[in-house]
Amino acid sequence: MLRITRIEALSDGIFAIAMTLLVLDLYVPAADLHGDELAKSLCALAPRLLAYVMSFVLISQFWLALHAMFHNLARVDRSFMWWNLFFLLTITAVPFSTSLLGTHPFDALAIRIYACHMILCGALMLALYRSGFIRDRLAIRPLTSEARRAAIRRILFGPAGYIIAIALSFASIPLSLCVIGFVALMYLLPTKVDHHYAADPSISEEKS
Amino acid sequence: MLRITRIEALSDGIFAIAMTLLVLDLYVPAADLHGDELAKSLCALAPRLLAYVMSFVLISQFWLALHAMFHNLARVDRSFMWWNLFFLLTITAVPFSTSLLGTHPFDALAIRIYACHMILCGALMLALYRSGFIRDRLAIRPLTSEARRAAIRRILFGPAGYIIAIALSFASIPLSLCVIGFVALMYLLPTKVDHHYAADPSISEEKS
Amino acid sequence: MLRITRIEALSDGIFAIAMTLLVLDLYVPAADLHGDELAKSLCALAPRLLAYVMSFVLISQFWLALHAMFHNLARVDRSFMWWNLFFLLTITAVPFSTSLLGTHPFDALAIRIYACHMILCGALMLALYRSGFIRDRLAIRPLTSEARRAAIRRILFGPAGYIIAIALSFASIPLSLCVIGFVALMYLLPTKVDHHYAADPSISEEKS
Amino acid sequence: MLRITRIEALSDGIFAIAMTLLVLDLYVPAADLHGDELAKSLCALAPRLLAYVMSFVLISQFWLALHAMFHNLARVDRSFMWWNLFFLLTITAVPFSTSLLGTHPFDALAIRIYACHMILCGALMLALYRSGFIRDRLAIRPLTSEARRAAIRRILFGPAGYIIAIALSFASIPLSLCVIGFVALMYLLPTKVDHHYAADPSISEEKS
Repeated sequence: MLRITRIEALSDGIFAIAMTLLVLDLYVPAADLHGDELAKSLCALAPRLLAYVMSFVLISQFWLALHAMFHNLARVDRSFMWWNLFFLLTITAVPFSTSLLGTHPFDALAIRIYACHMILCGALMLALYRSGFIRDRLAIRPLTSEARRAAIRRILFGPAGYIIAIALSFASIPLSLCVIGFVALMYLLPTKVDHHYAADPSISEEKS
Repeated sequence: MLRITRIEALSDGIFAIAMTLLVLDLYVPAADLHGDELAKSLCALAPRLLAYVMSFVLISQFWLALHAMFHNLARVDRSFMWWNLFFLLTITAVPFSTSLLGTHPFDALAIRIYACHMILCGALMLALYRSGFIRDRLAIRPLTSEARRAAIRRILFGPAGYIIAIALSFASIPLSLCVIGFVALMYLLPTKVDHHYAADPSISEEKS
Repeated sequence: MLRITRIEALSDGIFAIAMTLLVLDLYVPAADLHGDELAKSLCALAPRLLAYVMSFVLISQFWLALHAMFHNLARVDRSFMWWNLFFLLTITAVPFSTSLLGTHPFDALAIRIYACHMILCGALMLALYRSGFIRDRLAIRPLTSEARRAAIRRILFGPAGYIIAIALSFASIPLSLCVIGFVALMYLLPTKVDHHYAADPSISEEKS
Repeated sequence: MLRITRIEALSDGIFAIAMTLLVLDLYVPAADLHGDELAKSLCALAPRLLAYVMSFVLISQFWLALHAMFHNLARVDRSFMWWNLFFLLTITAVPFSTSLLGTHPFDALAIRIYACHMILCGALMLALYRSGFIRDRLAIRPLTSEARRAAIRRILFGPAGYIIAIALSFASIPLSLCVIGFVALMYLLPTKVDHHYAADPSISEEKS
């Protein structure tokens, strides 16, 4: 019923917009502030800037994971499509949680909402993966169990970190924030998933 | 004069943006609220969040219907193109009606405007369908009358539900809201349209 | 240096966003307004809604004209590309002029700025057309002088109408607004350009 | 792992949105201003309009440079991809720096932040270029050292100008602003890079 290219186009559009709307959280100090006052007002944007960069990295990571998935799909069906739309729904809401965390950086509630939001994204990503690849339902070719394990471990790493961050938020806010930042940093590192893909000649990065 | 691929690209872009702008309705509580006050302020966002999720589902459904239509088109002409642009116009306005309903969830006027907006979307979708497929004008291959009936029933289901919701809004606001939510939920279920498409080998979901 | 497909993708993206941002001009009445007050507040949005619909139609028309142009291009060069980027710059500014006209619908200054903005769009469209098709510089095949005249007449129709609207704005605001609305309505009608394209078998609307 | 077409789609989306969000910085004067007051209020938008046009030109230039780069890539790898995502991150933030400069046009701090932001964009563009073309790592065909030099000179021209602007901002604000405007103007001129591409038959601008 629906070609994969159209789902990719909608997904790319939604990711691009969600990534760009993050900037609306950085408000410009009023025109009547000058010199030191302006500088002070800009420094107050630091938590918002950090939240913005962190969310940009996390959304990027989800985008990469989504396209790695699309790349292995032979076709899509109604259930896969709706899982993808729900996943995209949680992505469109990321600018809200990011803004909440940037505005209330030391509030336990804001931290927990941000972490829960990211756990929800991860959970939907997992549901999407299962919808597409359980018993190789929609896959181009059977996945090795090693590739499967690597992908699922990658998806679950984030939620695991965020659960720790939520638990820590009851004891120490700064420690909880460190764990949240650490998860985003870890997603920048290459993992077995990448090596696996690189080693598979059938999904090389030829210019199409 | 215009290739279908370009109309698809514009449509996908407008859908993606309309879906993502919905999030702008969730405002972040002021920075000087803490603890219980922040929690209370966030709970007050619940109707906006519900309206956001509902509109996301409805826009998704229109997007799916639009691409199922494009998929069966051999070509487009001027009249089809303008019906599509008017349809996109009503889609770009969805964030407004959604925000109105989210801000005034128990106001009969807001409910009626939301319902009328969705009826208008449905009516334009029907006009678009007729413009493309009446006497198989722009179709790739003749549609069976069964497929036609299934598609039109699917398009008319929403407007029918919203007319009931408008009528109910004069008697009971909560009941009216239930009907509006029910319509969105029903669009998540598979129907004959999907089965029909799945059964047609010529429009299978091969990776292109 | 640059493939046409990429310019089309950027152009489609900018058009889609400019068309969707128009909705941000419709503000939602405050949550503490109810019943008649809410209705009155919504009625006050009427000029903004009219300006929104009119600008949507005008932007759509420019989008159609742009793609008809791209369709006849064999290649692009640096000067064509920059004319296109300047044209896109004026398109991104349309939500501002629209909002200005919607907020100050009976102010001569707002009307003149809106009209001047549209004249600028038309002038850049003409520059772009000349950059591409003068002496068939970048054209796929030579254009007939009839096709040329039809296209240029179509492009100049808008600016001509807006110049009349500006002149009238010194005598009668309502008359000036009528002319502005009339131009948008006229662009909905088919003209010789469309017939010309429809008659040319080499640019038929086959699904690609 | 990722096809170039998907990176292009995400990049085009982010560029299109960043270019269009610039318009949100032009606020519409309140509805109760008329005649001379409205005119005065609109004139006050001049610095914002200038900053908007300048940033649009600079973002356009980065977009052109990015696609010239993509055009020469045979494939992408993980490190190239992340450099590109970081580059896109700095592009999404341009509306903020632009708005800051437009709101505080004669403030040395705003000028320096704008200049630093543009230096960062240039530095990431250079890192991206090196990631793709050092030892022709991901290139379709070996680049001549002349082409390499021309590209790097082009990338470094901006940062060099902005460093001068920052230095001048300690002595004379108007002079510093002139240098910043001059850099944007210079990027409109064709350079050896363009001639080089035009002369290379293998990357001609055929319609694909």
